[in-house]
Amino acid sequence: MSLLVIGSLALDTIETPFGKAEYTLGGSATFISTTASYFINDVRLVGIVGTDFPSSEIEFLKSKGINTKGLEISKIKKTFHWHGVYHTDMNNRDTITTELNAFEDFDPVIPADFNSSDFVCLGNVNPEIQKKVILQLDKPKFVMIDTMNFWIEGKLAALKETMKLVDMMVINDSEAKMLAEENNLIVAAKKIFKMGPKMLIIKKGEHGAMLITNDFLFTIPAFPLEKVFDPTGAGDTFAGGFMGWIAKTRDISPANLKLAIVYGSVMASLAVEKFSLDGIRDLSKDLIMKRFQEFRDLTHFDSVSL
Amino acid sequence: MSLLVIGSLALDTIETPFGKAEYTLGGSATFISTTASYFINDVRLVGIVGTDFPSSEIEFLKSKGINTKGLEISKIKKTFHWHGVYHTDMNNRDTITTELNAFEDFDPVIPADFNSSDFVCLGNVNPEIQKKVILQLDKPKFVMIDTMNFWIEGKLAALKETMKLVDMMVINDSEAKMLAEENNLIVAAKKIFKMGPKMLIIKKGEHGAMLITNDFLFTIPAFPLEKVFDPTGAGDTFAGGFMGWIAKTRDISPANLKLAIVYGSVMASLAVEKFSLDGIRDLSKDLIMKRFQEFRDLTHFDSVSL
Repeated sequence: MSLLVIGSLALDTIETPFGKAEYTLGGSATFISTTASYFINDVRLVGIVGTDFPSSEIEFLKSKGINTKGLEISKIKKTFHWHGVYHTDMNNRDTITTELNAFEDFDPVIPADFNSSDFVCLGNVNPEIQKKVILQLDKPKFVMIDTMNFWIEGKLAALKETMKLVDMMVINDSEAKMLAEENNLIVAAKKIFKMGPKMLIIKKGEHGAMLITNDFLFTIPAFPLEKVFDPTGAGDTFAGGFMGWIAKTRDISPANLKLAIVYGSVMASLAVEKFSLDGIRDLSKDLIMKRFQEFRDLTHFDSVSL
Repeated sequence: MSLLVIGSLALDTIETPFGKAEYTLGGSATFISTTASYFINDVRLVGIVGTDFPSSEIEFLKSKGINTKGLEISKIKKTFHWHGVYHTDMNNRDTITTELNAFEDFDPVIPADFNSSDFVCLGNVNPEIQKKVILQLDKPKFVMIDTMNFWIEGKLAALKETMKLVDMMVINDSEAKMLAEENNLIVAAKKIFKMGPKMLIIKKGEHGAMLITNDFLFTIPAFPLEKVFDPTGAGDTFAGGFMGWIAKTRDISPANLKLAIVYGSVMASLAVEKFSLDGIRDLSKDLIMKRFQEFRDLTHFDSVSL
């Protein structure tokens, strides 16, 4: 049960109605790998950071059991930096700065002993890079990619090439509609299946997520919280929980895919309760299972006839 | 187990991307009472229609076991008429015409033997009328009202007076935020509880609904359909299913409130599959229970530890 994680590592400056954090640990691969580390021991990280990346944060990743052999450290450029400001309603945000820095040169070469990873989670990066990574691998059992409107608009042909190589894609609702050119999400999903992935996770932000395959549907709400401190990384945390559970159990039956979505939602709900990565830096199994049970209470009902 | 239903009866002209229906049966009280008739025998309807209301539709309501003694038929004015056109995405609509007609004079006098109704469901009408109705009643066990932005903006003081007299309110998410002047739905709900209702159903359209009290939370997705033919009346159908189940079981424990929300969602999902009231005119118990089971499959997951 090995999980290969590829994506960005960043130092983010984040402003929400509840406060501000400067040059704090961020990036898709950071959230995915940290989250997955609660599920399996063999998480393999591939990414790039810059001269200013704190060695204490590399030590943090190692302390979670994450294999950082694939983490390149640029000797001349700084770490990817994003500065965002969330609106009062937290559903929208403005980007103040995006400095790619070292990430601009990200051209991942997968370490030889990572090639045979069973499970692969590719964060939201250029689909050309996603494809290049997948082609380096030796028959992975299950590949998931994340993508976004930026690539659908700017790299559609490349994205479609990459989609042919993956089992599952994570996408948000408006992006699924854009990609399929279809307003109904169920119909949109069926169109996307024809492009390659056999399964989709459609993220709906504060409204939760939907898992859809040709055979079944499953929905999960976002956990209703009085205070969402910082939604940054929620989608990546979700993906990390999902892939962590799948890699741990090696089971993609419908019943187990549902559990993977639930664990993804559990982890995401814990992440947004604090700034940056702080919500998932140090979790106990008890805390995770408490939130799991809260999700059951939130969604389960008795069986009773009319 | 009697349920008193007060609201509008209308003849609607509806255009959706899938077709058009002219002067077809509509109105909040129509949807609520028809839906509730699948749950209990004693549904009591109070409303007003005009000279053009088809006698066949009154016979239809009677055929569902609905007591129409409280249905006034104007001798001079036509029936309330609404003409709406839904956008391609079905989440938005334009109103072409609203002709109040007989409904303008709606000043309900509750028939004497309806005064002791146990359960009361007040459709989305002027809160002054809702209050007047409630004050005519003899200690009902449970009163639910629906409301909307139009009354929050135009009749806020009256709405707040009415809210003091009710157990539960149905409201959509943007209206709850408007009423509470608060963006977070959980915090907004807590503010609304201080205005009177002990329970809220927050409707989120295609994203489902949330039941919230001071003690617990429950969420239910909207049933994912490939074709939503006509969303008109979905919220009223939801309310009718909810109150029908509550009136049938006379039980407002958390576990049973959850079931009421589920039955509301089941009925609403069946309603939107056809035009106007057609989706709920003639349902079998088997069909209702099939959809109930589909909701379980859509939301339930195993209990398993990390």
